Amino acid sequence: MRILVIHGPNLNMLGKRDRKLYGSKTLDQINTALKARAGDLDVELVTFQSNGEGALVDFVQQEAGKSDGIIINPGALTHYGLSLRDVLADSALPVVEVHISNIYSREEWRHHSVIASVALGQISGLGWRGYIAALEILAATLREKTRK
Amino acid sequence: MRILVIHGPNLNMLGKRDRKLYGSKTLDQINTALKARAGDLDVELVTFQSNGEGALVDFVQQEAGKSDGIIINPGALTHYGLSLRDVLADSALPVVEVHISNIYSREEWRHHSVIASVALGQISGLGWRGYIAALEILAATLREKTRK
Amino acid sequence: MRILVIHGPNLNMLGKRDRKLYGSKTLDQINTALKARAGDLDVELVTFQSNGEGALVDFVQQEAGKSDGIIINPGALTHYGLSLRDVLADSALPVVEVHISNIYSREEWRHHSVIASVALGQISGLGWRGYIAALEILAATLREKTRK
Amino acid sequence: MRILVIHGPNLNMLGKRDRKLYGSKTLDQINTALKARAGDLDVELVTFQSNGEGALVDFVQQEAGKSDGIIINPGALTHYGLSLRDVLADSALPVVEVHISNIYSREEWRHHSVIASVALGQISGLGWRGYIAALEILAATLREKTRK
Amino acid sequence: MRILVIHGPNLNMLGKRDRKLYGSKTLDQINTALKARAGDLDVELVTFQSNGEGALVDFVQQEAGKSDGIIINPGALTHYGLSLRDVLADSALPVVEVHISNIYSREEWRHHSVIASVALGQISGLGWRGYIAALEILAATLREKTRK
Amino acid sequence: MRILVIHGPNLNMLGKRDRKLYGSKTLDQINTALKARAGDLDVELVTFQSNGEGALVDFVQQEAGKSDGIIINPGALTHYGLSLRDVLADSALPVVEVHISNIYSREEWRHHSVIASVALGQISGLGWRGYIAALEILAATLREKTRK
Amino acid sequence: MRILVIHGPNLNMLGKRDRKLYGSKTLDQINTALKARAGDLDVELVTFQSNGEGALVDFVQQEAGKSDGIIINPGALTHYGLSLRDVLADSALPVVEVHISNIYSREEWRHHSVIASVALGQISGLGWRGYIAALEILAATLREKTRK
Amino acid sequence: MRILVIHGPNLNMLGKRDRKLYGSKTLDQINTALKARAGDLDVELVTFQSNGEGALVDFVQQEAGKSDGIIINPGALTHYGLSLRDVLADSALPVVEVHISNIYSREEWRHHSVIASVALGQISGLGWRGYIAALEILAATLREKTRK
Amino acid sequence: MRILVIHGPNLNMLGKRDRKLYGSKTLDQINTALKARAGDLDVELVTFQSNGEGALVDFVQQEAGKSDGIIINPGALTHYGLSLRDVLADSALPVVEVHISNIYSREEWRHHSVIASVALGQISGLGWRGYIAALEILAATLREKTRK
Amino acid sequence: MRILVIHGPNLNMLGKRDRKLYGSKTLDQINTALKARAGDLDVELVTFQSNGEGALVDFVQQEAGKSDGIIINPGALTHYGLSLRDVLADSALPVVEVHISNIYSREEWRHHSVIASVALGQISGLGWRGYIAALEILAATLREKTRK
Amino acid sequence: MRILVIHGPNLNMLGKRDRKLYGSKTLDQINTALKARAGDLDVELVTFQSNGEGALVDFVQQEAGKSDGIIINPGALTHYGLSLRDVLADSALPVVEVHISNIYSREEWRHHSVIASVALGQISGLGWRGYIAALEILAATLREKTRK
Amino acid sequence: MRILVIHGPNLNMLGKRDRKLYGSKTLDQINTALKARAGDLDVELVTFQSNGEGALVDFVQQEAGKSDGIIINPGALTHYGLSLRDVLADSALPVVEVHISNIYSREEWRHHSVIASVALGQISGLGWRGYIAALEILAATLREKTRK
Repeated sequence: MRILVIHGPNLNMLGKRDRKLYGSKTLDQINTALKARAGDLDVELVTFQSNGEGALVDFVQQEAGKSDGIIINPGALTHYGLSLRDVLADSALPVVEVHISNIYSREEWRHHSVIASVALGQISGLGWRGYIAALEILAATLREKTRK
Repeated sequence: MRILVIHGPNLNMLGKRDRKLYGSKTLDQINTALKARAGDLDVELVTFQSNGEGALVDFVQQEAGKSDGIIINPGALTHYGLSLRDVLADSALPVVEVHISNIYSREEWRHHSVIASVALGQISGLGWRGYIAALEILAATLREKTRK
Repeated sequence: MRILVIHGPNLNMLGKRDRKLYGSKTLDQINTALKARAGDLDVELVTFQSNGEGALVDFVQQEAGKSDGIIINPGALTHYGLSLRDVLADSALPVVEVHISNIYSREEWRHHSVIASVALGQISGLGWRGYIAALEILAATLREKTRK
Repeated sequence: MRILVIHGPNLNMLGKRDRKLYGSKTLDQINTALKARAGDLDVELVTFQSNGEGALVDFVQQEAGKSDGIIINPGALTHYGLSLRDVLADSALPVVEVHISNIYSREEWRHHSVIASVALGQISGLGWRGYIAALEILAATLREKTRK
Repeated sequence: MRILVIHGPNLNMLGKRDRKLYGSKTLDQINTALKARAGDLDVELVTFQSNGEGALVDFVQQEAGKSDGIIINPGALTHYGLSLRDVLADSALPVVEVHISNIYSREEWRHHSVIASVALGQISGLGWRGYIAALEILAATLREKTRK
Repeated sequence: MRILVIHGPNLNMLGKRDRKLYGSKTLDQINTALKARAGDLDVELVTFQSNGEGALVDFVQQEAGKSDGIIINPGALTHYGLSLRDVLADSALPVVEVHISNIYSREEWRHHSVIASVALGQISGLGWRGYIAALEILAATLREKTRK
Repeated sequence: MRILVIHGPNLNMLGKRDRKLYGSKTLDQINTALKARAGDLDVELVTFQSNGEGALVDFVQQEAGKSDGIIINPGALTHYGLSLRDVLADSALPVVEVHISNIYSREEWRHHSVIASVALGQISGLGWRGYIAALEILAATLREKTRK
Repeated sequence: MRILVIHGPNLNMLGKRDRKLYGSKTLDQINTALKARAGDLDVELVTFQSNGEGALVDFVQQEAGKSDGIIINPGALTHYGLSLRDVLADSALPVVEVHISNIYSREEWRHHSVIASVALGQISGLGWRGYIAALEILAATLREKTRK
Repeated sequence: MRILVIHGPNLNMLGKRDRKLYGSKTLDQINTALKARAGDLDVELVTFQSNGEGALVDFVQQEAGKSDGIIINPGALTHYGLSLRDVLADSALPVVEVHISNIYSREEWRHHSVIASVALGQISGLGWRGYIAALEILAATLREKTRK
Repeated sequence: MRILVIHGPNLNMLGKRDRKLYGSKTLDQINTALKARAGDLDVELVTFQSNGEGALVDFVQQEAGKSDGIIINPGALTHYGLSLRDVLADSALPVVEVHISNIYSREEWRHHSVIASVALGQISGLGWRGYIAALEILAATLREKTRK
Repeated sequence: MRILVIHGPNLNMLGKRDRKLYGSKTLDQINTALKARAGDLDVELVTFQSNGEGALVDFVQQEAGKSDGIIINPGALTHYGLSLRDVLADSALPVVEVHISNIYSREEWRHHSVIASVALGQISGLGWRGYIAALEILAATLREKTRK
Repeated sequence: MRILVIHGPNLNMLGKRDRKLYGSKTLDQINTALKARAGDLDVELVTFQSNGEGALVDFVQQEAGKSDGIIINPGALTHYGLSLRDVLADSALPVVEVHISNIYSREEWRHHSVIASVALGQISGLGWRGYIAALEILAATLREKTRK
């Protein structure tokens, strides 16, 4: 099983961004934790970060065909990245959307995700642990489907 | 550590409701799974379900004082249960909001949660596993806070 | 054939409420007229009224499984009772929504029914006779389906 | 007692239009059923159909003075036919608005009727039987008024 | 003269809720102060609190007929309790709406009261004293009417 | 100088429509008064009424080329008659829009005229005299332009 | 018969303002023309202009009691002068609202008049002649009422 | 203790304005009643009325520094007087907003107060007695603060 | 293969209407060009124009059954002709919507087409050539389907 | 070169108003700094402040004819002062709008300026230095135009 | 004559994306067909695809100066690519916007194109043939202009 | 002191873009003028332009840590570049937003800046001089802070 973990704009700055909102773990630390857990679950994990929507779309186009699921934190693209939305829909893979902070208790414009309608589900506001839960559930869901 | 798990209107019908949206597990099965996991995590779990907003508010008022956190699936009250919202805010406890189906890929009116702005975070669309993840993360987060 | 007739908040006050809007018949008189007509049509009729949305949801959950159709006047819950809407949808029964007064010629906020999208149809503004028509048409429609 | 039954645009195509929405009865069959029932009720029934709003307005202007009530299915004019609305209001007759399909469970723009605010009441989504019920209730209501 | 004082959801928690918003007096203390002032004014006072809209509607239905006026703090139902609104309108009694905090300087959704349009008047943001003023003015207004 | 006076849907019923809104003069009486005044002003007046937008558009297409100005009361088409709006714009003639009743103190939907943006001006709420004033000013304005 | 003619902000600059919109006549010239016509009609005319809403309100308060009607061009206050609206409503006099330019073919925000709903009628876009027509119709309407 | 009582546009006409809405007391009578009550409470009261927003702003600027609280009925400025709002906010004094009529049961545009968000609280629809209650509560609140 | 070409209100005035928007070709010239191209493509072409929505609906009802596709320029009915929309949907034929001018760079209200959602596609702003392209593509698409 | 510097409501309180928003300089200090800089630039500067929109309009009407440009901080009138907007547009002078605080990071209603569309440009949030920059750029722009 | 054909995000996946919406032709096949047709028409065609808005803007900046027209399918950037819109407007070239699927019969957010207002015209929903038609009409239109 | 000057999409085309809106200076000329002025002020200036949001975000991430302030003209990203907004907020540096043209007198969609709420202030519509003023004020403001 192969799962893509995609981080959108400014997530490479985790640990330096407002810690009250985003916690103190860096992106490297989160990716490391994810890979450790993926190892336990016998999942191949590919991580990617970019600040540009075009590069994120390129990545999904290239990797989706050889993968089984996607975990994505689209950063601010959550709210306007319709090209990213389309490539996720085109991939036909199950997508779990993760937000470190609770986007529903922040500015009004952060309450709407253009990604959500093409996602299997969403985890918001539960910090770096949201990624781990996304991985565990996505892997379990994919296993369950395979078995059927 | 004591955590309340609250199920709103119609969640007692899980297993009988549209299975494509809500899965085939009954509420009893979910509560049992949650309690098993709570046992592992050394958490005391109190579960409650009601179809009436008043009874849900009563329950939170009575139990919040002796508890450390709340996991809630407010059912349709998600979208208009402002009394429920107020009692959760009054409780001053960390709240994790769980939705079995992805409320953001269903009818427009299901996209807005009046609960979300007073919650620590939200898990939506990840089925019964969303409850388990909510429990694990809530317990971990509470432990982390205590240690500090 | 078994049909539920459900009356929402304040409908127990019919006959005492503004008679220009709601007519002079009491709820008992309407229920009696409905039962007489049901007798003619060989329909078993179960009537219920409550001022609380929770109790209405409880009733539908308990009775829907043994019934063939629902006639409901949701009272003011018409406009915000999303839990009631969900239980009606979950019942998978044909639902006829009845309003004694014409909700479309009253205040703007009465023009939107959250129930309507899960109903087979709606009768509004035709007084107590609207219930009788609802019963006749629901029974005829159910008979027609059975015959096919 | 004389009642006008008015059918708006495209209702002459009943039986050929989408049968899931509109049923399989033709307009002739509905008019025949209405006239049979009108005979029972000692009501003179005048039916009319046009695809043009102007012709519908002309008809109401000419016939309203010699009639006691109006049953109208305005077709798509329901949503923008303000001239039709005005002539119905000017007629000062009781109007019952009938829709074969449930306009409240279809496209958003079909949820608003410009006719409803000048109607006595509305029956929506109950198929051809909605016309019969409209006739029965309109006749009964008119008789009741006369008696007083 | 008999006046009902009705407290909606979560008001039984006064004194424990956010004191900056709601002050430090408990509901018992407020009811006691109201009863003392009612004694001075020769008014019979009946107080009631519930977290459920159904129970509040039941109470108004049962008590309105033997009473002369209503003072109500609808809590969060202020913003969506249309069944409560209808029973207050049906009562035909003068209603004074009281809010301890200033609902117009809080969240946007608290700025709209569905109760206000059926109330004689409203006092908002003046703390527990708002209840006393409501009682004094309601009693004086009722006396004035009687005298005429 | 040749001026068209165009009356939209239901204006042929003037004198019979609600007299508080529309006055007691019939359309014939208004047309006669207009023609008398036109005689004084040496203006050739052509009047037309139809309940159908198509016929109104036909009339403008046929007559505009031989005319110098248009006075129009579009009736309810004021609010949705975009085809009528386009033909008036295409005519390139000065248009004065007349409403017998004050459309700005009636229902919200009557406050918007789709015609107004292609008109020279508008007279609303001044009864049949509004037509006379429209004629006088249109004639004077046309004379003034000619002189220049 | 005594009629007030009130000019709002910036109307004292007529003749200097954009002549394509407002024509080339000065306010003095318009007032002179109005007084001449008033003489013909045996009407006493009092004219007033101010750039301040307060002064306009003061004027109406002082003069309304001794007058029979009001002609007002509220200038930009048309769109937000609610105090001016209230004093006109309080005056209980028939009010004719005049706009020299067609407010409905200009910026969107000029399409809404807060004055219109308390006016008898409105003349818009017909230049200085709109004032004369307003005077003639207001005088005629007042005479007609008196005669009855 | 010194309290300003400020009356906005058209409130000098109380007693002459629509008595059903505003009661029959004149502004002088209300001011006299307020001063009598202020005497009881050992409060120095300064009253002011103007129809112009500028004059009201000037007054608050000049008087706020020597005062302890403000009671204001902003009249129609309630809905658009943002300069008045700013000066009240700048004053840093507790402000009680009073409306004689219930602004929430009148026209839609009267439901929004630009003043409310900078006020301590609001009394609406309780007639002249609302002023007295405002004075009593403002004085009591100020005394309470001082004591602390 | 038989294709209907339908022109809505005011399109008979092409060549006389604003040439910057609509070009200098008359409707006859466009129909002639279309028929020539249809001849090349072995398509039977039936053209129709009317200024009345009713007549357009009549035409589609009568002709759709014997035709394979529809090209329509609905004129201003594009924006409100819901009866026309319904008959096009009922026809179950592929519909290509053509606009000579670019409706998306004109007034805001021209940006929304009620026809578009029932059309196969739309060509806008490409002048008379848009019709030719519509014909070529519709014929090719129909041929392709037949072949399968 | 002569430039008007106009300060709207409450700007005479600078230095006393919330210093975090508006800084600690008084209006006199700002005017003095502006005049010093104007001296350097050989510009005649006329400053004016009023709390009343009428007085601001009067000032622009009187001074615009003898001036070359306007710098204005409209205070709260920024958001509703349409009379002020009209007089600025009528002046045909280049206008620079200055706001001491950043109106786009404050309350939603402060984000819209009715003045901006008639201004050359706007400086917001840069404190008292915004005025100096406005003066320098306005003078330079005017000089540049003259030279051409 | 030189024409740019620009394909936005995800269009490089044509043939693999949902074939019901986008057809089965690959981008290469479409480009090849376009080039063949361009050869016939003696047009030099330059094609470009990118998933990043920045690269698309770069391309237009570099190529527009040496080209005569642009055909663009902006993909999801249609709905938010304002930088792309600006560079197309800056190019001052005629632009034809092409969409393979009918954007007006899909999700609500796909109904609005930020590109359309700067385009000559738009072809939507006519599959790969829409590109060919765009090329033919653009070439013909450019030739026509040159000849004049 | 080190200040970043960032130019968004299409600003590299200054001098070639519509000169009425954007003036005739090229970006190089503006950067040169800024650097000259920076030299006077003893400020190190780093300039950057890109048409891609990703590259702009990368630049801010890399440079913000070694800089003291940011001047940015976000081009069309002003209206949707939420990733750019987030990186500017994350930088915690004072940001001055500059627009050459007056975005508030252009298309409606240009009136909203997603950047403004995280900026210190904004200069709009004052041409290339706006950049110079931004530099002068930003430098002065930074110096002032340092001194404290």
